[in-house]
Amino acid sequence: MKEKMTEIPENLKKSVLVKIKPTPYEQKCLFNVADYLIKRTSSIASELNLTGVSARLVGSAARGTWLSGTHDLDIFILFPEDTDPEYLEYYGLKIARKVAEESDIWQEQYAEHPYISLKFKGYDVDLVPCFRVSYASNIKSAVDRTPFHNEFIKENIKGLEDDVLLLKQFMHGIGVYGSELKTRGFSGYFAELLVIYFGSFDNLLISACDWYPGMTIDMMGHGTLNHEEPFIMIDPTDPRRNVAAALSVDKLAEFVDKSRSFLEHHSKDFFFPKPVIPLTDSEIKNRLKLRNSSMVAIVFETPDVVEDVFYPQLYKMENSVPSLLENHDFSVSNTGSWAGNYSVILMELLNSTLPNVKKHQGPPVWIHKHADKFKAKYKDSGNIFSMYIENGSYIVEKVRKYTDVKTLIESKLLTCSLGKHTLKSIKKGFEVLEDDEICRVKDPEFRIYLRKWL
Amino acid sequence: MKEKMTEIPENLKKSVLVKIKPTPYEQKCLFNVADYLIKRTSSIASELNLTGVSARLVGSAARGTWLSGTHDLDIFILFPEDTDPEYLEYYGLKIARKVAEESDIWQEQYAEHPYISLKFKGYDVDLVPCFRVSYASNIKSAVDRTPFHNEFIKENIKGLEDDVLLLKQFMHGIGVYGSELKTRGFSGYFAELLVIYFGSFDNLLISACDWYPGMTIDMMGHGTLNHEEPFIMIDPTDPRRNVAAALSVDKLAEFVDKSRSFLEHHSKDFFFPKPVIPLTDSEIKNRLKLRNSSMVAIVFETPDVVEDVFYPQLYKMENSVPSLLENHDFSVSNTGSWAGNYSVILMELLNSTLPNVKKHQGPPVWIHKHADKFKAKYKDSGNIFSMYIENGSYIVEKVRKYTDVKTLIESKLLTCSLGKHTLKSIKKGFEVLEDDEICRVKDPEFRIYLRKWL
Repeated sequence: MKEKMTEIPENLKKSVLVKIKPTPYEQKCLFNVADYLIKRTSSIASELNLTGVSARLVGSAARGTWLSGTHDLDIFILFPEDTDPEYLEYYGLKIARKVAEESDIWQEQYAEHPYISLKFKGYDVDLVPCFRVSYASNIKSAVDRTPFHNEFIKENIKGLEDDVLLLKQFMHGIGVYGSELKTRGFSGYFAELLVIYFGSFDNLLISACDWYPGMTIDMMGHGTLNHEEPFIMIDPTDPRRNVAAALSVDKLAEFVDKSRSFLEHHSKDFFFPKPVIPLTDSEIKNRLKLRNSSMVAIVFETPDVVEDVFYPQLYKMENSVPSLLENHDFSVSNTGSWAGNYSVILMELLNSTLPNVKKHQGPPVWIHKHADKFKAKYKDSGNIFSMYIENGSYIVEKVRKYTDVKTLIESKLLTCSLGKHTLKSIKKGFEVLEDDEICRVKDPEFRIYLRKWL
Repeated sequence: MKEKMTEIPENLKKSVLVKIKPTPYEQKCLFNVADYLIKRTSSIASELNLTGVSARLVGSAARGTWLSGTHDLDIFILFPEDTDPEYLEYYGLKIARKVAEESDIWQEQYAEHPYISLKFKGYDVDLVPCFRVSYASNIKSAVDRTPFHNEFIKENIKGLEDDVLLLKQFMHGIGVYGSELKTRGFSGYFAELLVIYFGSFDNLLISACDWYPGMTIDMMGHGTLNHEEPFIMIDPTDPRRNVAAALSVDKLAEFVDKSRSFLEHHSKDFFFPKPVIPLTDSEIKNRLKLRNSSMVAIVFETPDVVEDVFYPQLYKMENSVPSLLENHDFSVSNTGSWAGNYSVILMELLNSTLPNVKKHQGPPVWIHKHADKFKAKYKDSGNIFSMYIENGSYIVEKVRKYTDVKTLIESKLLTCSLGKHTLKSIKKGFEVLEDDEICRVKDPEFRIYLRKWL
């Protein structure tokens, strides 16, 4: 690791920590609630005559690495390793439901196994049944890994908690924090491992300036598989797993870029960026006029599924619709997507109309059979402008079917590669807006997105 | 060679031959003139006390393969092989000039060596001094080869003269006859060799239906070099030479395509195509409206050089200007070129205008040094819309310099790769016409070209 002569001022870090580090009172409140829920869970298990079942606080709350103001509690209900999965699901939920009866609101959620989310005294609590396995590599379901992560971090994070808080807030401020599929950034566990590995927030940022795709950190030296993701951080509790699997190349690049910028110009703005104000109608119109490009937006109702299911479908659509347009000779220079109650795919084009004539390449003259077929097909077609030979191949100039982008989208959108829920929603209806018409999308969050995108 | 069950009707061939085969009277007139000029050349050589100098009729006239109505006579003045080149040039021209004194008009021409063109009793005569070498492979200049071609054809063409006439007229009718750099088609010698090799006009056309690029004919089996051209016909008089070197891939393809069509539908139109009528202004406007594309023409004065020098420069320009446009994000779908007193480069575009914003890709974020340089360059530039990261690389959205094609051409045409004479002419002035403005080019030959191109 190359050492640079850059030091982050201590008072800057202190002034950030003042805002993000939970106060002793905040900590006490949280642990009181956590203790109560753990005891309650255990006693319900006893009441049900379940043996070997225990409850444990995991996640950033358990590790002292949670940001002030966040109120998330992850409480895992651990069952013996040899428990029958159906038995675990049944009794796990039974216990969790009973705990939830005391809560304000609660609902069942489904990942690999069902679990329960509830609101309790202002905290967002997840009650998650899992197997207590002996090694992380023996896990039966993804959540079984969490207790191992918890142990590893707790054992190694001592004295580095503030550095983790600074890193999380920095990542949050520059928009790369969160490994859910909407963000594809850094998970909390990943951030903690980075601080442990590099020893401090400062050292980590200095190192990040020279990161590159394919970079691998394997702190236990036990990795066994090849990983193709942009960044590889082998899980110290599981040699087969890449902790950074969700990180996209652009979020990685963003982190590298912002680490450099921050080390050049220390500023609290990286941790607490100035709020972005929604674009007004006249700002939108003014920007469109300055760019003088063709703007197209597809608007449809956001399907009612969890974000981790929907966002990959939205991003898929953000790729597949421009492909449709490019296949029909339109040039798409930028794409964007946003989702609230409705979803928007944005595309910026060099031009929104095309000539009536479309050049279509046929077979080389030398492929006699194909040549005969091609000529026969177009010979008596009244629908072509001309046929000629160019670079040894036949060219036919046809009448173009779609000369404007709106008609193309309206006619062919359903042929694009779309996710299941997106397709269903689009089948119910969608709207294509051009240029100034995007002002009809009023949602302030969309307008905030637009300020960065447009 | 694959035999097909296609027979060209004898009466069709006869009716073509009636029009293209010189009558006995026409032949007599031509040979009288040729004899006179040969004798005159010899006697002048004698008067000058030159020994070993003789004159000889070569070319299609000497071989009985010239088309009725053409009046070309190639008379070569042969000097002994060991003649000093300067001596040959001096006395060769001296003899030719003296012969030319009797002619209506004459002028000196320059190929590898100077020669004289003259009009004599209605015939276009070339008087060409050359070396009488012992083998074609010993030639000192390209013209020395001609007497060898002459001998080879004369020895092998007997009985096939009509087939050569049919082939030449067929090639002429479909626009592939002539090996000059304007046409890049088939030379007369090439046509004669094809008839000799395939044995008849019919067999040749049947074979041509299955020709392909890279096809090689080496009738003497003596070829020594690798040739890269689309068609290879090793010169029976020179193992190193490809007789088909000038043939372009599209003229080859055109011949293949038209051979197939003719064998399917025998018609005299292939030999004598209907005359093409110049496009009128209203036809131009109508076609442009139907295509609804953007048309651009660059018009400049044709430089005063021979066609074999100019046409390669014109075709070069027809490639280099579209490259300029494509480099500036315009999409060129078709190109064309024409030359008369002035020259025209034609381009058809998907659109003639572009947005003000231009996406410019910078270095990958990971190349730290380049990244720093790139960011520093654009950091305080007021001239950009935005900077962001896409697929791991920086993108800057700049203000586009050329948003319409006419301004681009007017500003940057001289930066295109242009031939010497073309560049000189364009420096004197040029005009860019858009869409209907091409009606301002009135030359009927241009309008004939347009009917095929547009």
